[in-house]
Order: sequence, then structure tokens, then C-alpha cells
Amino acid sequence: MTPRTGTAPGMRPEPPARQDSLRTRNLALVLRHIADAPKPLSRAELAAATGLTKATVSTIVDTLVEARLVGELEPRLTRPTGRPAIGLVLDGGAAAGLGLEINVDYLAACVVDLAGVVRHREVVQDDQRGRTPERTCAALADLAARAIDVATGLGLTVAGAGVGVPGLVDGPAGVLRFAPNLGWRDTDVRALLSRVPRLGGLPITLDNEANLAALGELYADPSAPPDFIHVSGEIGVGAGIVVRRELFHGTRGWSGEIGHVAVDMDGPACGCGAHGCLEQRAGQEAILRAAGLSGAAVTSMGGQATVGRIVAAAERGDARTLAALRDAGRALGVVVAGAVNLFDIPAVVLGGIYAPLAPWIAPQVRREVDLRVLWAAWSPVEVRVSTAGADAAVLGAAGSVTHAILREPADWMRRRAQVGGPAR
Amino acid sequence: MTPRTGTAPGMRPEPPARQDSLRTRNLALVLRHIADAPKPLSRAELAAATGLTKATVSTIVDTLVEARLVGELEPRLTRPTGRPAIGLVLDGGAAAGLGLEINVDYLAACVVDLAGVVRHREVVQDDQRGRTPERTCAALADLAARAIDVATGLGLTVAGAGVGVPGLVDGPAGVLRFAPNLGWRDTDVRALLSRVPRLGGLPITLDNEANLAALGELYADPSAPPDFIHVSGEIGVGAGIVVRRELFHGTRGWSGEIGHVAVDMDGPACGCGAHGCLEQRAGQEAILRAAGLSGAAVTSMGGQATVGRIVAAAERGDARTLAALRDAGRALGVVVAGAVNLFDIPAVVLGGIYAPLAPWIAPQVRREVDLRVLWAAWSPVEVRVSTAGADAAVLGAAGSVTHAILREPADWMRRRAQVGGPAR
Repeated sequence: MTPRTGTAPGMRPEPPARQDSLRTRNLALVLRHIADAPKPLSRAELAAATGLTKATVSTIVDTLVEARLVGELEPRLTRPTGRPAIGLVLDGGAAAGLGLEINVDYLAACVVDLAGVVRHREVVQDDQRGRTPERTCAALADLAARAIDVATGLGLTVAGAGVGVPGLVDGPAGVLRFAPNLGWRDTDVRALLSRVPRLGGLPITLDNEANLAALGELYADPSAPPDFIHVSGEIGVGAGIVVRRELFHGTRGWSGEIGHVAVDMDGPACGCGAHGCLEQRAGQEAILRAAGLSGAAVTSMGGQATVGRIVAAAERGDARTLAALRDAGRALGVVVAGAVNLFDIPAVVLGGIYAPLAPWIAPQVRREVDLRVLWAAWSPVEVRVSTAGADAAVLGAAGSVTHAILREPADWMRRRAQVGGPAR
Repeated sequence: MTPRTGTAPGMRPEPPARQDSLRTRNLALVLRHIADAPKPLSRAELAAATGLTKATVSTIVDTLVEARLVGELEPRLTRPTGRPAIGLVLDGGAAAGLGLEINVDYLAACVVDLAGVVRHREVVQDDQRGRTPERTCAALADLAARAIDVATGLGLTVAGAGVGVPGLVDGPAGVLRFAPNLGWRDTDVRALLSRVPRLGGLPITLDNEANLAALGELYADPSAPPDFIHVSGEIGVGAGIVVRRELFHGTRGWSGEIGHVAVDMDGPACGCGAHGCLEQRAGQEAILRAAGLSGAAVTSMGGQATVGRIVAAAERGDARTLAALRDAGRALGVVVAGAVNLFDIPAVVLGGIYAPLAPWIAPQVRREVDLRVLWAAWSPVEVRVSTAGADAAVLGAAGSVTHAILREPADWMRRRAQVGGPAR
């Protein structure tokens, strides 16, 4: 049935709203309200919140429950008399997202269910520099296969995989265009992963790890402001720009390359070919070098342990480490303040290694932001520490899959019907 | 009459499209097609382009012609037989926008008609530093009154005024929050202008002059790319960020403060309270100082003449001037490259004083962008020179008024009917 809008002489109606698009939209509307509610809503509360009729809400909720997207809690009595209200929540027992991450010195995988619970995570500290993309992707595929096995064992259906990589991504093509710290160019990561039997047929999306880390923070922290700059400290330094709870991608998806903003135009050479990039002052290896901690014994430990070593040295008051952190924090603060002056975004989240190093880094960032942001004196800029921490990117990668289901539940229901029914 | 969409059981229709919103939307649709067409369209061509019926288009065009928003050209024969086609163009003879600008060392006003023709412009070189907002606004109101007189004499109705100011603006309140180079804080510019009888009752909007300069460039240059960063060199240095032909304003409308991005964190003190801001290396006064041209005789000449003096010195090969321009261009290039790395916007437009200084500045900017933008080697970033030049901000201010009419013609028609009929 194709409903038609009314017309008047001389005026042409809008393209009529198709029935299935209406159904699609209302499914998404109800699911979004259930997902965003601070406490479980009943059908009646959903009707009031969405403006839909109770009958419509009931039909939609039944569909969502049947599709294992929504679950019903035990009935609770809201009034002494009358029928008890049944609270509705996201069903964490069926659909899940697979998050994967290739970073310079580690690989990671995780499974996050639709309710946002992290059901599995695995990190392998292993330096990827000098490796071929084929070798790295094969190793990542092993992590992915284990994650899918775990998910299946838990009764979950993996709806897709999000992959974070430390470089510039051509998202639609699934290609990593350039990863300065890996030395890779034009690497078809999606094709390399898809040729693995366990991953074949799984929708795979690729994004920059700093972008995904910003999404990970957004998903992990209900109190995250709607607009923020999330800065990820790793061997590389990247940023994800969130505007009205969406990533600001730039014209080609390459925004947020804060690690290659100059902090000292005549400074040391960077892997990108330029001089004086922030990464050379505030990246993990720059801090290690400046702190005198960069012996082979430390760098072979991998990221998390390396950061632990920096934290330990700072905590015991090692002067060289404290000076290195002061200098890194100041450089980071100068560049972050510049980004705030350019974007007018009133919150900065320190993520990656900057989260455990925040006791030493954050005060410097705070000081430079207060000094340099034109409006800091009367419209304060918030500097906060990531809640998602080191796993933000891989969690954001998995979350990007589950949030796609929440945005377009009808797509997932259609796809799942083709693949063959509910998860269990 | 209120048309209703069709419904199906269990589904609630969208809010029905109201007849007047349909009419409003179609008026705007047809007007936009006429405005954007590279050559005058006929009614039949408009019907083909918009998907509306010829009868609908004819009714709408008659309304727009009657409202003096659209004019008809002399008939042209498109075929040997049949009725001649009448080309439709924007009517430049009725509605116009008033552009006003307060800058550090000049005031400006202009009148731009709906067809985009600049009908009047006046610039008064006069340093405003140390002046009270009352005195400056009174002087600006004199320029505004003369502009309105000229417009009226030309048979034009001024639909509103856009005002550019060199600082952070609270747009909805019409208040200039902070202008570092003027030393003004929390100045209610709209109230100061509205109390002038000739401006009372005129809708007045306030924006940052670098934002308006970016709009001025967008309106002036049909070949402007959809995404660009427009950098305005003045005594202050500002940027307007254009994304998909719209200003990217940031959370509070303060984006683009590129003049206060640090180029050298331990550099000279800036009026904003920080150290090493770009403005102290690439602003007009910094260039004059470094070139040894900053005597009282020069600075009292005002902006355009001052820039002429720099150009003359550079053209005769004055070594100190050439070194000053090289240094300014390099600093600008380093910061612009950082902005491109952060925003992923593939075009940079050099405006304000950088337009006449482009022969010396642009090669340095080009060099730093090529060196520092992570993707410059395979996805080139365009560095171009403003076509709107020094008047970009005041032209953008006037254009923001006429473009508001083009976006919402029904609003203007309703308002004009209240004010009292067509312009002549």
C-alpha cells in the first residue's frame, strides 16, 4: 500500500512516505528510546516518550523482542492496583559486534554485545613494525577467530567487525592509505581479513584508531559531553573529533591528525617526513627517550607494560622522567589549545597512554589551555581523562557495529533472516 | 486544508505536511534553482530541473516576479517555431543586504543587491584602538545611514544588516564577547546600532569578521570548492571554516581563531595573554615591524595603504621586507598545515592582506603544506588566493542578508508585506 499525501491546486505533493520506511523509522525510534533511557521503560512510558500510540508501541516492542534486540525484565508493580509494568532493556544475549585493532606495537580483539557489555577481550603485545600487512592481518585473524568462537560459545551472533588501524583510511574501499609508523601504504586490510574463512561474509568496516577511540569513549561514558576532542597517546598521537555525538570526519575521513601538528617547526625529524611534529615530543617513544627509559628491555615489553614503567619512574620521583612528562604535557597542551581555538570544542579527553599518565600530563595541558584558548577565562574548557582508557579504539570498533544495529534495526533483522534465524 | 498521509494498522502517520510549508518549500526550491543556475532558465527548464509540474512552476514564478525576487529577461527563441522562452534571473532591483564591518583600523559598509551586485561600498581607514564601543558604533552608524540613503536612491529596500566584528561573538544575543585587538568585552553591538533611528527596526545579525570573510569568498567565487579554510590576514589573523558550503561554527560560534594558535610556544607576548601566537609572526603589524616599516607615518595610513607599502618594498627587492614576508609565510604555512591535518579540509584560501601579499606568502604556505600535511603527496591540498580580497568580510556580511532571503523567500515576502509593499 502506498499512502498519498493530499494536494492542493498548483502544488505538487512531497514524495509519499512509504509504509515500510515508516515501519523502519518507528522501529529505530522505539529502539533508540529503549537504548538511551537511564532506566528501563515500560510500553506505556515508551508511548508517552515517542508520541506513538500504545498499540503501535506494543506491536513494535513485540517485533524487537522477537528479533532478540530487546528483552523484558520481571514485571514490577507501579501502582497498588492494575497490571504490573514490564521494563524493557536492550537484549545483550543475541547480537554482538567484533572489534579489531592493528596498532604499532599490539593487536587487539573484543566482543561487545548489544547491551554494551564487553564479553571478551584479548590484547597481544607484539611490535608490528617491519612486518608485512599479510603477516599482521593473519595474526589479527587468529585473534578474530578466537573472539568469534568465544562469542558463539556465549550464544552470540557476531553482526560485523570494525577494524581500527593507525593511519589514514579510505573507509568505503576498506583500504589503509598510509600508516607512517608501520610504513604501510595502500593496504587493502578488508580484503586481507576477508580471505580468512572465519571472517569471509562478515561485514567489515575500517576506520582510523583515533576516530574509533573517540567513539569508544562516547559509548563508554554516559556523562561524555556531546562535543569533545579525544586525544589518543600511543606510539603515534591521534585525535577523534566528536561534534553533536557524531564523528567529524573531514572531507575524506582523515581529520584529527594532531600528532603531525607542528609544536616546534625546527624540531626533530618525524616519520612523516616533516619536522617538529607533536608526536616527536609527546608520543610514547619520545617520552621514553626523554626519560632515559628507551632501552631494548623496555620497548620489547609492549605498550601497557611500557607505560607502567613510566608511571613507576614518575611515582618514585625520577627527575628525568618527571621532566620528560612535563615537556610532553606542555607540548600536548600547546597543540590541544590550538585545536580548541580552531574547532571551538569545549572539552578535551586525554586517552591512550595519556590516561595512566594523566597525573603528570593533565596539569600541563590544563595550564596551556587556560593560557592559550581565547575564551578560557570566561567559558572554561574541560580537560578530562578517558574512562575507556587503552582499549578505547577496539571497544569503539566493536561499538560501531552494535550502534549500527541500534540505528538501523530493520537492516539487521533483514540480514539475520537471510543468514538463518535468531542466534539460538 | 490539511492533507493527511495514509495510515496502516499499528502505524502512526508522520505529522502531515501543512499546505503553507509545502508552498514555502517550493518557493525556496524554485528560487534556489534560479539563483544557482549558470545561465538563465525558462519556466519549462525549471520544471524539468525541480521535478515540479509546469503549472506549479508558473504559479511560483509569477509569485516570485510579483515579489520582485525574480526578473524576466527579453524572450529568446529556442526553436524556429513555437513560443519564445523567457529567461529568469534574480531581480537585483528591489531587495538588498547592508554589510557593515568594524575592524581594528577601519570601518566599512556596503550594499549588495539580491543578484549579488555590489551597489555601494565605503571604507573609512581610522584606527579604532582606544575608542569606546559607543564612539565606534556611532561612526559606523554614519556609514550605515549613507549606505541606506544610497540604496533608497537606487530604488532598493534594505532587508537587514550583517555586521562583522574582529572578535568572539554571541550571535543570538548580538553581543561581541571579546575583541583582543580592540580591548572590548561584552559589547552589545546590536543594541548600540539599533538605537540609531535610521537602523531601528532593521534586523541586525552579528558575526566574527573571519567567518563573514569566508562567506564573502564563497559568494564571490563560483569556483570556490565546497570545503575550504579561508584565512584572513589583518592586524588580527582569523579563519572561517567552510564545510559543504556552510560555516563550521563550533560549539559556541568561536571556531577559526587561527591567529591564536601557537607557532612558537616561547615566542613574543600576544594581546590575548599567551605567547608565540601566529598573529605575532604573521599579522599585519608583525610583518611591518619585522620589515622595519612600522613608523607612525605608515601605521596612520591605515590597512590598504599599509599593505601597499609592504608590496612596494617587496617589489623593489628590499631584503628586510622579503625576509619578513618569508618568515610570516612560513609561520602561516606551519599553522595552516596543522589546521589541514586537524580538519582534513583540502583547500586553503589566502584572504585579507595575504591576497595582495600572495606572491611572497603563498609559496611559503605551499611549501609547509606540502611538507607537513600527512596526505599532501598523493591527495594535494589546494592553496589559492581570495577573489573577494580585502572587502570579503563586509561583502559576506551583506551577502548573509541576501542569502537569507534566497533561503527563505516566504519570510521576506511576509515581512515586506508588513513593512508596506514593494520597493518602488
